Amino acid sequence: MVKSSPADLVTATDQKVEEMLISSIKEKYPSHSFIGEESVAAGAGSTLTDNPTWIIDPIDGTTNFVHRFPFVAVSIGFAVNKQVEFGVVYSCVEDKMYTGRKGKGAFCNGQKLQVSGQKDITKSMIITELGSNRNPEVIKMVLSNMERLLCIPIHGIRAVGTAAVNMCLVATGGADAYYEMGIHCWDMAAASVIITEAGGVVLDATGGAFDLMSCRVIAASSRDIAERIAKELQIIPLERDDGKNTN
Amino acid sequence: MVKSSPADLVTATDQKVEEMLISSIKEKYPSHSFIGEESVAAGAGSTLTDNPTWIIDPIDGTTNFVHRFPFVAVSIGFAVNKQVEFGVVYSCVEDKMYTGRKGKGAFCNGQKLQVSGQKDITKSMIITELGSNRNPEVIKMVLSNMERLLCIPIHGIRAVGTAAVNMCLVATGGADAYYEMGIHCWDMAAASVIITEAGGVVLDATGGAFDLMSCRVIAASSRDIAERIAKELQIIPLERDDGKNTN
Repeated sequence: MVKSSPADLVTATDQKVEEMLISSIKEKYPSHSFIGEESVAAGAGSTLTDNPTWIIDPIDGTTNFVHRFPFVAVSIGFAVNKQVEFGVVYSCVEDKMYTGRKGKGAFCNGQKLQVSGQKDITKSMIITELGSNRNPEVIKMVLSNMERLLCIPIHGIRAVGTAAVNMCLVATGGADAYYEMGIHCWDMAAASVIITEAGGVVLDATGGAFDLMSCRVIAASSRDIAERIAKELQIIPLERDDGKNTN
Repeated sequence: MVKSSPADLVTATDQKVEEMLISSIKEKYPSHSFIGEESVAAGAGSTLTDNPTWIIDPIDGTTNFVHRFPFVAVSIGFAVNKQVEFGVVYSCVEDKMYTGRKGKGAFCNGQKLQVSGQKDITKSMIITELGSNRNPEVIKMVLSNMERLLCIPIHGIRAVGTAAVNMCLVATGGADAYYEMGIHCWDMAAASVIITEAGGVVLDATGGAFDLMSCRVIAASSRDIAERIAKELQIIPLERDDGKNTN
């Protein structure tokens, strides 16, 4: 099925995985809150409160899943007082379990993660996505942002089709930054703590403080690279996940 | 080190792997010819003759290799009378060995490969690359081609940073097409037979017959998709690998 555009796909599996995750967590923690991609699509709210909240993307990379392109992840973040305390991203086809907990480090299959530490944008490899928005004006802005970065120049741009895995790839040091606008809190929550615990930084695409509900992120191996990317990006107007004023 | 642009990287490993491959094949087949990426960079010719010829990319995805981005391949194609008879692409980090032999099928780690068979471009996922050319006019054309395809619309675009693996991903059915201009015969030779043996088609980016020396390819799950992509692409002026007239 399609959601916001002919390229925004959802399958019965997304919905089943989310139901399974939420119902099993609810059994143990009946007072906790949930923000899940498919529950929100079905009309549930997505306001982040101070209550312990599980932020869930049952399948990050649904288009990949539909096409059997080998990057598909389950992403689960846990926030208290609006701060993400820990996150888990399981990249299923690769069988890679990424975990991060505030103050306790980030790991992939038990191995400690460390960002590249690269500070020179001209030696950087950056991940981003073309996204699922098919509004011609938005596509133009997405491509124009890529153009500005390529012309700095940078070493290259990659796109594997899942925000959570993209951020984890930066956490491994396999790329120096990831940025995107038009993603959601469930795409970023878990990976945001994985990347900071691997020594990286997360910023809003404007260069301001990271905001889980702003639908925008720059996740980078260093503040220098994150700020340099922010300087190049034209900001795409987006609705926030929490329905507050448009960004 | 850099070659044609600040984003066109080469390492001592590229050169060592190529020397090792060529010297061990030469021992067995002293009369055969070779076209290897690094030998050509060092001044050897790259004219394809009717003589049995090994066409070698020692590291496809050198930028990935430098950054530890997990897609790096060794690509070896073998041509006789200018036709590729078999090809091997080894995706090292994934430990996936792709093989194809004319008339004998294509395989990954022994498992038979089959393209998706998708014919509807609006349901397709396409792989391409931003490339290493940093000429602003070329970057504009690369991005404008992406824009035309996204606006059809299609499901999405992915870029993992190696031509050979991109083509093999189409052979697995994980994506419906790959196109690129500005690659070389050593990037395509092996994978071209893997994709056709998996039931796919290869065309020149103009929509004409595939030409190993034209530096352009569309590899697709069906002729419909390949021709539809060709219809959208603006052709980037490129020098041919064999030094004949510019495309």
